Amino acid sequence: MTTNKVVRLAQRPRGPVKPEDFDIRDEDLPEPGDGEIRVKSSYISLDPAMRGWMNEGKSYVPPVGIGEVMRGFAAGHVEASRHPDFKEGDTVTGLLGVQEYAVSDGKGVSRADTSLAPLQTWVGGLGMPGLTAYFGLLKVAEAREGDTVVVSAASGAVGQVVGQIGNIIGCRTVGIAGGPEKCDALKTEFGFDAAVDYKAGNLFSDLKAACPDGIDVDFENVGGDIFDAVLGQMNPFGRVAVCGLISMYNATELPPGPKNMRNILVMRLRVQGFIVFDFIKHYGEAMQALGGWYKDGKLKFKEDIREGGIETFPAVLSELYTGGNFGKLILKV
Amino acid sequence: MTTNKVVRLAQRPRGPVKPEDFDIRDEDLPEPGDGEIRVKSSYISLDPAMRGWMNEGKSYVPPVGIGEVMRGFAAGHVEASRHPDFKEGDTVTGLLGVQEYAVSDGKGVSRADTSLAPLQTWVGGLGMPGLTAYFGLLKVAEAREGDTVVVSAASGAVGQVVGQIGNIIGCRTVGIAGGPEKCDALKTEFGFDAAVDYKAGNLFSDLKAACPDGIDVDFENVGGDIFDAVLGQMNPFGRVAVCGLISMYNATELPPGPKNMRNILVMRLRVQGFIVFDFIKHYGEAMQALGGWYKDGKLKFKEDIREGGIETFPAVLSELYTGGNFGKLILKV
Repeated sequence: MTTNKVVRLAQRPRGPVKPEDFDIRDEDLPEPGDGEIRVKSSYISLDPAMRGWMNEGKSYVPPVGIGEVMRGFAAGHVEASRHPDFKEGDTVTGLLGVQEYAVSDGKGVSRADTSLAPLQTWVGGLGMPGLTAYFGLLKVAEAREGDTVVVSAASGAVGQVVGQIGNIIGCRTVGIAGGPEKCDALKTEFGFDAAVDYKAGNLFSDLKAACPDGIDVDFENVGGDIFDAVLGQMNPFGRVAVCGLISMYNATELPPGPKNMRNILVMRLRVQGFIVFDFIKHYGEAMQALGGWYKDGKLKFKEDIREGGIETFPAVLSELYTGGNFGKLILKV
Repeated sequence: MTTNKVVRLAQRPRGPVKPEDFDIRDEDLPEPGDGEIRVKSSYISLDPAMRGWMNEGKSYVPPVGIGEVMRGFAAGHVEASRHPDFKEGDTVTGLLGVQEYAVSDGKGVSRADTSLAPLQTWVGGLGMPGLTAYFGLLKVAEAREGDTVVVSAASGAVGQVVGQIGNIIGCRTVGIAGGPEKCDALKTEFGFDAAVDYKAGNLFSDLKAACPDGIDVDFENVGGDIFDAVLGQMNPFGRVAVCGLISMYNATELPPGPKNMRNILVMRLRVQGFIVFDFIKHYGEAMQALGGWYKDGKLKFKEDIREGGIETFPAVLSELYTGGNFGKLILKV
């Protein structure tokens, strides 16, 4: 009989995630009840937000409970259906958890059109990361033609899409990433106008050289020193979309905030946090735009697909926080 | 012959302002040219922003030049006019500088209606501080009925007006100030629903007790630890109007920013800096509202008027940054 390999949260991590924070085991294959489907996942998405979901405390979603299946997006095939809207063989994506098989009532599960893009793209550029880029850049930061847009973690799942949408709408796009290989790819693969290597040791001045007219929009994925350097170069009435603060997710104590705080006042900046779920009513509009650009060849997505299977989840997840991935990090099941 | 006592910037201060940063001397009485007026100032406004105006570097206005008259708002009488819009005896207010007599071409000078309020009120509650409170609370933070609004430096020129406007529109208003005397006044004189004494040593928990439903709007005048405590208690989709950061104006090195930065993301806050000058097109609307509330007895203004004359400007200014004033700080000439 087939079993289901499941990743459950064993304890709340302190600092970086460790293998012992998870409990990975074979469980009985779950059977769908009335109005449910069973999905066999092929791809599991690794997202920076996962670290936050493991912490106790008030946030935008309740934390994953100890002993619960680790929360995560996945894409796969409907294997058994007792749900009127899905049939066997449908390709779907949704919050299916970090496990091989998921039983779902279909809420938050949507069909993945594999005639438009391969299945894994539906947890990447055409999934939450793409939607996050779309809403953050266009609705939160309100980027406009002619703006200089800076994106941190620019070769990551969200950053690469932010840069490409920025190009589509006529912005000057500047990506911040770690190392020459990623920085080269920003320009050659994703069409960024400039790339800044934060590991090169001259972040502030390199950023200044890349943004001779200052910065109008910051799409912030990282926080810490990188955010501070950007904040110090913002133009009057600049907008910061705070999408992620990956530099501090593993901190055991709250690190100090940006020293260039004063610029929020004197430059009259708008610094605004957002979560993609807040825009759920507008997913349709965004998907139409993203899908259209993708079909027209204006958007491409770099994926970093790991083949080690479910057991490697803790180790692969850790790489997100050290910059070990290059592109959207996905675990193949 | 009458002379004009003038305060000129002698050097850029490092840290807190010192007397030797200014050059105070008697100069010849200036004569208005064609299209100009001469104003004899009666009241000079002391504003937190003055410290920033003395610094070199990019800001929302150019710095006061070394040797130039110190920038400042004042209210007084037109003593001589060669300007078609003003006549002798008119009471006026504007950016007239820290000096006894100012010659002006009338730009930025407006009439002060002393039948509505005494002259000094036109550099206070019905002047820039009142306008700042109005735009910051209603346009930047978009405070609404039912919101819990926290104001720091709440007994100051701007803070006291923020609290009263908050009450008028039906918010729960919580003021932060230093010491029991100011905190009592917040409740008894200005009608705040609660007051928190930041000097009492339990800022975070006292604020929590005063805001049992969390904080929807922060009108930030102070920055530093006070801002951090507020930021840590903001509700989802809360708004922060960054009006001032007085705690850091005298810093010689940039202090670290707020540790609760992460809340901007998880609570999807909007943190927005503003300067009253940005709203110049809407001054009319604001003045009508402020004047109306004042006439109806819904707004009152506490002023702290110092009578030592122009020579005491450096010492009196310093008090703003140590909390030595109680209400809108004004120097009587």
